[in-house]
Amino acid sequence: MAGCGVRWQYILGAALSGALLLTAGILLGHYAIYKEPQTPEWLHSLSRDLDPALLEDFMNQVEAARIGQNLKDLSSKPHMATTKGDEELVQLILKAWRDPQTGLDSAMEGQYEVFLSFPDPEKPNSVAVVMENGSQAFISQETEKNLTADQADRDVVKPYAAYAPPGNPKGKLVYANQGKMSDYEYLVQQGIDLNGTIAITRYGGAGRADKAINGAKFGVVGVVVYTDPGDINDGKASATETYPYSWYLPPSGVERGSYNSHFGDLLTPYYPAKGEEKRLLPDITGIPPIPTQPIGFEDAKTLICNLAGNPVAEAAWQGALGCVYHLGPGFRQDGLFPNSRLPSNMCPSIFAKFLLLPPLDRYVLYGNHRDSWVHGAIDPSSGTAVMLEISRVLGKMVKEGKWRPRRSIIFGSWGAEEFGLIGSTEYTEEFYSKLQQRSVAYINVDIAVFANATLRAQGTPPAQSVIFAAVKTPAADSSLSVYENWKQHFSRNSSVYGVIPSLGSLGAGSDYASFIHYLGITSMDIAYTYDRSKTSARIYPAYHTAFDTFHYAETFIDPGFTSHQTVARTAGNVLIRLADALILPLNVSDYGETLQQMYSVAREAFQADLTHHNISLDPLWAAINRFQAAAAGLNQRIANLREEANPSPLDVRMVNDQLMLLERAFLNPRAFPEKYYYSHVIMASRSSSLATFPGLADAYDNAKEDGLWGEVHKQLTIVIQVIENAASILEPVAE
Amino acid sequence: MAGCGVRWQYILGAALSGALLLTAGILLGHYAIYKEPQTPEWLHSLSRDLDPALLEDFMNQVEAARIGQNLKDLSSKPHMATTKGDEELVQLILKAWRDPQTGLDSAMEGQYEVFLSFPDPEKPNSVAVVMENGSQAFISQETEKNLTADQADRDVVKPYAAYAPPGNPKGKLVYANQGKMSDYEYLVQQGIDLNGTIAITRYGGAGRADKAINGAKFGVVGVVVYTDPGDINDGKASATETYPYSWYLPPSGVERGSYNSHFGDLLTPYYPAKGEEKRLLPDITGIPPIPTQPIGFEDAKTLICNLAGNPVAEAAWQGALGCVYHLGPGFRQDGLFPNSRLPSNMCPSIFAKFLLLPPLDRYVLYGNHRDSWVHGAIDPSSGTAVMLEISRVLGKMVKEGKWRPRRSIIFGSWGAEEFGLIGSTEYTEEFYSKLQQRSVAYINVDIAVFANATLRAQGTPPAQSVIFAAVKTPAADSSLSVYENWKQHFSRNSSVYGVIPSLGSLGAGSDYASFIHYLGITSMDIAYTYDRSKTSARIYPAYHTAFDTFHYAETFIDPGFTSHQTVARTAGNVLIRLADALILPLNVSDYGETLQQMYSVAREAFQADLTHHNISLDPLWAAINRFQAAAAGLNQRIANLREEANPSPLDVRMVNDQLMLLERAFLNPRAFPEKYYYSHVIMASRSSSLATFPGLADAYDNAKEDGLWGEVHKQLTIVIQVIENAASILEPVAE
Repeated sequence: MAGCGVRWQYILGAALSGALLLTAGILLGHYAIYKEPQTPEWLHSLSRDLDPALLEDFMNQVEAARIGQNLKDLSSKPHMATTKGDEELVQLILKAWRDPQTGLDSAMEGQYEVFLSFPDPEKPNSVAVVMENGSQAFISQETEKNLTADQADRDVVKPYAAYAPPGNPKGKLVYANQGKMSDYEYLVQQGIDLNGTIAITRYGGAGRADKAINGAKFGVVGVVVYTDPGDINDGKASATETYPYSWYLPPSGVERGSYNSHFGDLLTPYYPAKGEEKRLLPDITGIPPIPTQPIGFEDAKTLICNLAGNPVAEAAWQGALGCVYHLGPGFRQDGLFPNSRLPSNMCPSIFAKFLLLPPLDRYVLYGNHRDSWVHGAIDPSSGTAVMLEISRVLGKMVKEGKWRPRRSIIFGSWGAEEFGLIGSTEYTEEFYSKLQQRSVAYINVDIAVFANATLRAQGTPPAQSVIFAAVKTPAADSSLSVYENWKQHFSRNSSVYGVIPSLGSLGAGSDYASFIHYLGITSMDIAYTYDRSKTSARIYPAYHTAFDTFHYAETFIDPGFTSHQTVARTAGNVLIRLADALILPLNVSDYGETLQQMYSVAREAFQADLTHHNISLDPLWAAINRFQAAAAGLNQRIANLREEANPSPLDVRMVNDQLMLLERAFLNPRAFPEKYYYSHVIMASRSSSLATFPGLADAYDNAKEDGLWGEVHKQLTIVIQVIENAASILEPVAE
Repeated sequence: MAGCGVRWQYILGAALSGALLLTAGILLGHYAIYKEPQTPEWLHSLSRDLDPALLEDFMNQVEAARIGQNLKDLSSKPHMATTKGDEELVQLILKAWRDPQTGLDSAMEGQYEVFLSFPDPEKPNSVAVVMENGSQAFISQETEKNLTADQADRDVVKPYAAYAPPGNPKGKLVYANQGKMSDYEYLVQQGIDLNGTIAITRYGGAGRADKAINGAKFGVVGVVVYTDPGDINDGKASATETYPYSWYLPPSGVERGSYNSHFGDLLTPYYPAKGEEKRLLPDITGIPPIPTQPIGFEDAKTLICNLAGNPVAEAAWQGALGCVYHLGPGFRQDGLFPNSRLPSNMCPSIFAKFLLLPPLDRYVLYGNHRDSWVHGAIDPSSGTAVMLEISRVLGKMVKEGKWRPRRSIIFGSWGAEEFGLIGSTEYTEEFYSKLQQRSVAYINVDIAVFANATLRAQGTPPAQSVIFAAVKTPAADSSLSVYENWKQHFSRNSSVYGVIPSLGSLGAGSDYASFIHYLGITSMDIAYTYDRSKTSARIYPAYHTAFDTFHYAETFIDPGFTSHQTVARTAGNVLIRLADALILPLNVSDYGETLQQMYSVAREAFQADLTHHNISLDPLWAAINRFQAAAAGLNQRIANLREEANPSPLDVRMVNDQLMLLERAFLNPRAFPEKYYYSHVIMASRSSSLATFPGLADAYDNAKEDGLWGEVHKQLTIVIQVIENAASILEPVAE
C-alpha cells in the first residue's frame, strides 16, 4: 500500500565513442604461392588431397595443458566488450597469432562504433522494498558475494539488464513465472490487475527482453528477473550445496545478459557501423520498454516467499526457493513486508572493436567472441582457449614447412557478442559480397565445454558429414570414439543412415547467426555438454555471473581440460578437412533428408486446412524430389571425379563451387521483410513450435487466426522456389 | 455538349491458360570435356587464350544475305507473343539451333504461364465522336490502311493499349500534350476543368502507362494516344511523303504497346510463373486505371484540329498535324463536331512461352525477344536474324571441330518482351542463383538496326572495354572502323581516355533489365542507329505498327543488310571474346570513372544542402578512391599474370571471378524496397534528371519537398556501402 522508493541509474552516452575491437588471424591458402613458368609446379599441388597423416599429426599436437593455460590467461580478469580487460585480450590474441614460431600469416584488428549498454559503476542498480512510512525494508545485493576472490575484482560489472531503459517505477509485486505472454494472460485470468505492477519473473521460457516487452503490454511498469534454483541448480539452493562446493550457482549469483532480441548493432541494421557519417538511427525495437533488473535467487526468495495472493501459483510455476509461490499482487500481511511496494533498474551506453581481412579466394572461417560479462571462463574463454590451441598447432605446422592449407583459414575473435552478436554481424555487413562469394563454411566454438559428458554439434545439414568424419576417433580420455559417445547421449533415427548422433539446428544464439541467416554460409557450432540424466540445469549454473571463473572451470566443468582438448581436436579436424580436402567434405544430400522431414511435419499438421483453402503441397513435394535427385546425381559425379588420377582443377573447382554455393541458393532477402537478417528460407527463426519450414509454419498459424491464407500460399511459393533453385545449383551445369 | 457513344471491348480471360514460350540454344564450354588420367590433357586447354585467327574466321563468315533471309523468314507473319505466328518462330529457331551442320549442343523450350493482354479480334476498339442528336460524326480507323499487302494479314492485331482496362467513358476532349504530370498541371492552370474529360496525348515524354495514370489523378476518364508526325516523321505527314514512299509513318499507322510500367509477369513479381499453385495475385500497379486507346495521326488530326479553347496550346505543345493545336475542352463550334463528345478503348488477356537451361559453370548469355506487335521486322526480328547468323557461324565452327569455347554460351529467344520483358524476367526468377553465380555477362541485341548510320551501344562500365576491342575493325561497308564511325556520331571526353565513343547506360527498355537490375550481371545492348543530323524521329517511324515489315526493313532501314552484318560481327566478336579469352576482357577500372563522374554531379548539385543538414559526401569520395585504387591494383595483377607462361588455372580463375562478380557487389535488395527488381544501387532507375547515384538523387529531391533528410543520409550510406563492398571484391584476396 505504501509507496516504495527505487533507484534507477543509467548512462546513455549521447556521443557514440569507443569502438568494438575484433582480432583476426589468417592462414593463407596454398595454390597462390606457386608461379613457375615452363614446368607448372602447381600441377601436383592442385590435385593433391588431404593427407591423413597430417590430421593425425594435428590431433597429437593438441595439448590439454596448453588449453588450460590459455583459459587461465583469458579469464584472469573481467573482460566485457570494450573494457580494459577486453583490450588486453585483443593484445594477447594478436600476440599469439603473430608469434614467429606458431603464428599465422597475418593478424589484424579493426573497429566498429556500435551501440552498447553499460551501467554506472558508481551507482549500482537495485530493487528495494519501501514501507508505508518511507523506511526501506529491503534492498537487493549490489553484486555477488565474494566467495573465491574473483568476485571482489573491481572490474566485475554490477548486475544490470543491458539495453533496458532507466527509470524508477514503483508498484505492487506480482510473480509472473517466465514472463511469457501466456503467463501474463494467466495472471489476468486469475483476476489480477497488472496495471502499475512490478513483475518478478524467472529466467527461461521466454527471451530476456520478451519478459519486459510482454509485461508492458499488460500495464506492468517494471520487471525483475531472477534465476530459480529449480531451473539451474537441480533444486540445490543453500550456500554449502553451491559453488565453491559444487558447480551450482550460489544464492547471490546474478545472470547478466543483453535484453536485446535482435542481433547486430541496433543503430545500423544491415550496414557496418563505421563512423558517424553512417549512423542510420532507425526506430529501435526488440528491447525492453520498461525498466528491468536481474537479481540473485537469495534476493528473489525474500521477495517471492513474502508474496500475498490466492490461489497459490499453479504447480508448473513453482520453483525451488523453498516456499510456496503465491502470485501477489503485493506482499502478505503476515510476511516481512506487510505495507510496502517494490522494484528497480538501470541502463546503457557504448562499444567495442574487431576485424580482419580475408586472403586466398576460398575461405574457411573459424570464430568465437572474446567479450564476457564478467571473467567469462566458460562463456566465452573456453572457446577462445580452444581456438588459440588450434591456431597454435596449425601455425606451427605451417612455420615448420610441413603443410599449407589448400584454402585460406580465417580466425575471428569477435567483439561484443554478449550485447547481440554485434562484432560478427558488423563484420558480415562490411564484407558481405566477399564472404558470400568465397566462404566454404563457418565454424563457431563459443562455449567449448558446458560440461564434460558428450559432444553437442549444431549446423546446417551439409555440416553433418564433415563433423561425423572428424569424430570417428576416440576421445582424449576414453576408448569410445567421440562419435559413439555422442550417439549414446543424443541420437536420432535417420531415414537414410539409421541411428546416428543428432546434429542440432542453428538458432541465433551465437556468432554463427549472421553467417548462416544473413549470408547463407554453411555454418556449425561445436561444444561439449551435459549428461542430461545427471542434471536438468537450464545451462551451466555460473552462466553470466561473477562465478564463471577459471577456478570454477578447472574444478567443476572440465578438470584436466580433456573435454576442451576433445573439442579442439574435433573442431580442428573439421577445419583441416574443410581447408584441405581436394573435394569439399560437405554432403549436400543430407539437406534432402532434412527437407523431407520438414515436409512430413508440414503435411501432417497443415494438409487438411490447406486442402480446404485450395492450397496443394504437391509442388513442394515435387521440388524436394527434384532436390534429392540432383544431390544424388552430384554425389555420383563426385565419386567419378575421385577416381580420376589427374582431374582437371577446374572440374574440381566446379563441383566444389556447387557444394559451397548450395547454401546461398536457400536465401531470399525478400521472404521475411519484417525479420531483420533472416533470409535463409529453410533455417529462419519461427514462432511456430513445429520443426518445419518456418515461413510456412508461421503463416499457417497466423492464417488460423486472421484468415489470411494468401500469405500461406505466398510462403509456400517461396519455399518451393528456393528448393527448386537449390536443386538447379546441384544439377549438372551442362544439362 | 451532346452525349457521345463509345464502344469498349475486352477479353480478360479469367482462366490463365496459354504459356509463354522461350527457346534457347546452348554451346557447351570447353574444359569439361577432357578427362584423361596420367597425362593431363587439360594442361594446354586451361592456359590457351583467345585465337585472333578464330575471330577473323568468324568475322569473315558472317553473311549479310543470310541475315536478310533470316529476317524475311522471321517477319513474314505477325507474331505477337503466344499467337500462332510466335509458335511457328519457336519451331524455326529450334530447327536452326538443332541443325546437324550448324546447330548448337542442345536447344530446348520451356513455358511460363503469365498474364498478357489481348483485344477481342472480332470487336475492334474505337474512338468515336457522337453528336447531340446521337448520330456518330466520326469513328477512328479499325487498323492501318493496306499499303503493301502485309497490313491485310488477318493476324494483324488491331490497335489497342495492352493492360488498359475496358470501359466506355464519354467526355469532352482536351489536348494534353505528352500526358506528363506537368502537362495536366498546365491545363489546370489554364482554367480547364479536367474532371470527366478525355485527354488526347502524343507519344513521347512520359511512359505509355503514365499518360493515363497521370491523367486519372486529375479526373480524366479516358486517354487517347497518337503519334505526332512532328515527333516521328520529321514533320512529314502526307500519304505520298510516307511509307511506302519513304521510311516515314503513314497517316494510318498506330503504335501499339504495353501500357505496363513494371517488368516481369504482373501476377508473380520475383517468382517464376509456373503453374496455378504459384500464382500470388499481388495488387497490380503501374497500369492505366482508365481506358486508353492509341490511334493514328490521320484520326488524331481530325480530333485535334477541331478542338475549341483559348488560348491555343503553347509552342512546345504544337505538333505537325498541319493546324494550330488548341487545348479544348470540346470541339469548336465552327469545326466538324460543334456539339459532340468523345473517346474509346478496349482490353486485355493472356500469354506466351520460353526457356532454356544452362551448361558449363561459366556462362556467357546472349538473347533477344521473339515476339512482335505485328510483323515486327525491325522490332525484334532484326535482332533475331542477327542472333541466328551468329549462332550459325559459331555452331558451324564447332561442328567442324575448329573450336569450342572456354565458357558455355547460352542463346535465349525470349517471349512476351513487348508486354513487359516477361519471358526474360521469369527466366531470371527461376534460375536466379545459378545465373548469379555463373554468368560472365549478358549481351542483348533487340532491334539490331534502327537505322544504318552508326553503332550505338549501352552497358555497364566493364562492357566498354570488350565492345571497344570488338569494333576497332572496319565496318562491313566502309573503310572506317566501326569504332571511328561511332566516335564521329557519339563521343564524350573521358577523363581517362580522352575523346572516345560514348557508351550509353542501360535503362529498362529491353530484356537486359532483369539481368542487370535484379541479378547484377554485367550487361550490354548493341545496335545500329540514326544519324541524328538527318532525322529527329523519336524512333524509327514504323515502330510497333503494321508497317514494320520486311519490305520496310530492306527498302528503308538497311538495304543490303550491311548494318545487320556489322551488328552481327560486333556482337559476335564481343561474345567470342567473353566466351574464350583466358582472362575476361572486362575492364573494371572503367567503373571508377563512372563513379567519379556521378560523384561530381552529386557534389555540384547537392553539396550545399547536404552540408546544411550535416551530411558529408567525404566518405563517398573516400570509397570511390578506394575502389579506383583496388581496380588499378587488380589490373596490375592481371598484367603480371598475363606474363606468366603457365599460370595456374586457379590463379586465372580467381581474377576472372573477381571480374565476373564485381557487378554483383553493387546489389542491395533492400535499397529500394518500393521499386520492384531494382537492386543495383548504381544503375537503378531514378526520377531525378541528374545522372548520378539514383537513390541519393531521388531522396534529395524528395527531401527538398518533405524535409526527410534522414532518407538522404540512408541512401548515401547505401551507396558508400556498395562501393566499399565492390572495392573489397577487387582488392587482393590475401590482403
